[in-house]
Amino acid sequence: MSKIPVIEMFGPTIQGEGAVIGVKTMFVRTYGCDYHCSWCDSAFTWDGSAKAKVRMMEPAEIMAELLELAGDNFNCVTISGGNPALIGEGMGEFISMLHARGLQAAIETQGSRWQEWFYEVDVLTISPKPPSSGMSTNWEVLDSIMNNLSARNKVTQSLKVVVFDDMDYEYAKSIHRRYPLIPFFLQPGNEDVTEEGDISGRLLERLEWLFNKVIVDKEMNLARVLPQLHALIWHNKRGK
Amino acid sequence: MSKIPVIEMFGPTIQGEGAVIGVKTMFVRTYGCDYHCSWCDSAFTWDGSAKAKVRMMEPAEIMAELLELAGDNFNCVTISGGNPALIGEGMGEFISMLHARGLQAAIETQGSRWQEWFYEVDVLTISPKPPSSGMSTNWEVLDSIMNNLSARNKVTQSLKVVVFDDMDYEYAKSIHRRYPLIPFFLQPGNEDVTEEGDISGRLLERLEWLFNKVIVDKEMNLARVLPQLHALIWHNKRGK
Repeated sequence: MSKIPVIEMFGPTIQGEGAVIGVKTMFVRTYGCDYHCSWCDSAFTWDGSAKAKVRMMEPAEIMAELLELAGDNFNCVTISGGNPALIGEGMGEFISMLHARGLQAAIETQGSRWQEWFYEVDVLTISPKPPSSGMSTNWEVLDSIMNNLSARNKVTQSLKVVVFDDMDYEYAKSIHRRYPLIPFFLQPGNEDVTEEGDISGRLLERLEWLFNKVIVDKEMNLARVLPQLHALIWHNKRGK
Repeated sequence: MSKIPVIEMFGPTIQGEGAVIGVKTMFVRTYGCDYHCSWCDSAFTWDGSAKAKVRMMEPAEIMAELLELAGDNFNCVTISGGNPALIGEGMGEFISMLHARGLQAAIETQGSRWQEWFYEVDVLTISPKPPSSGMSTNWEVLDSIMNNLSARNKVTQSLKVVVFDDMDYEYAKSIHRRYPLIPFFLQPGNEDVTEEGDISGRLLERLEWLFNKVIVDKEMNLARVLPQLHALIWHNKRGK
């Protein structure tokens, strides 16, 4: 049995962003990332600050803990990170376990690594990171991931780009041009992921900014612009 | 040629709610409604206050005006009301015209009237009105609409219920139970559609209230809870 490094599990809550925005879901967050984005809202998954909390868990243990947390009060499990695509066999086993119970698996990853279990994911969000992150995209890897997924035509896939500034917006456009047939989501960035208290005003201003860019841009007629609902409501609190 | 009573046209803007939340769209609002919901956010479409602004337009005239407003800077036209399902042949012609240009038609209606052109709509939102509206649902009509749509299995349909209070929530559950296979959206109501200034705080409180109801309710595992993004950003302003 391959174990999975889990840093937190919580829910049920509401998925706040992306293709399945608004859906009730459990969250499983894996530890470890090949990226270290400057504005990461979950840096504790890779910066070492919470390393003591990581548990190496078998898929069946994760499943048992989800059921203990939520009983039958959920239908979807979102696996996020860190980068869950760093995990091989164990994740495939976990997804099979979810399916055996009629549960859906939603996964978000930056598109820097391929895993065969991507084919089994119900809702797969590939979220390449724009220049403001400080990371650079390996286009060869991203192309091959997108090609693999399109070839099977089985997974509900989408692309999502977080946008902080004009350079990020141009990067987002280059992604949308490169993979024009893949459902495409834009999301304004949260410029301070540690600020306490109500940050909804600041976040809504950035959403309006992004709305206004897309509204006048005919290359973005098929894009979808969505906020992070959880951040509008629960702000920068963790575990919501 | 059948004419369509149009009370306003605007865009491009971003669709703020429902199944295609976040998509760039033009809006065409038709005049006239068989309902008069107590909290209607577009009462000017039926209460007579803006009757002087209604234009009887041929489908080709509407098309021309949309192109004049937005050029090729949109891919979707949302037809709302009032109740656009009060309009027969003319609407079918208009939808064909959109398709001939590769444009999508999204329509919202309360499910009180059937039209043959429902089969041609790309994104059809049926939004039955809960008790707080003061309206009562004709279940026979609603059943027959949902049956017609399911039989053809061609239209991307969804159900959306606006929820103001606990009674509305129970009504929403009864809808979801009755049509369990249809994608189901919940949306918190805007309790004052005339208040000026920033109402986002009040709206987000109601979104949190609805999130929390759904989170603990295992009958709502497949529901999606979404706000009205346009109201969060542009508040009660019209034409946005």
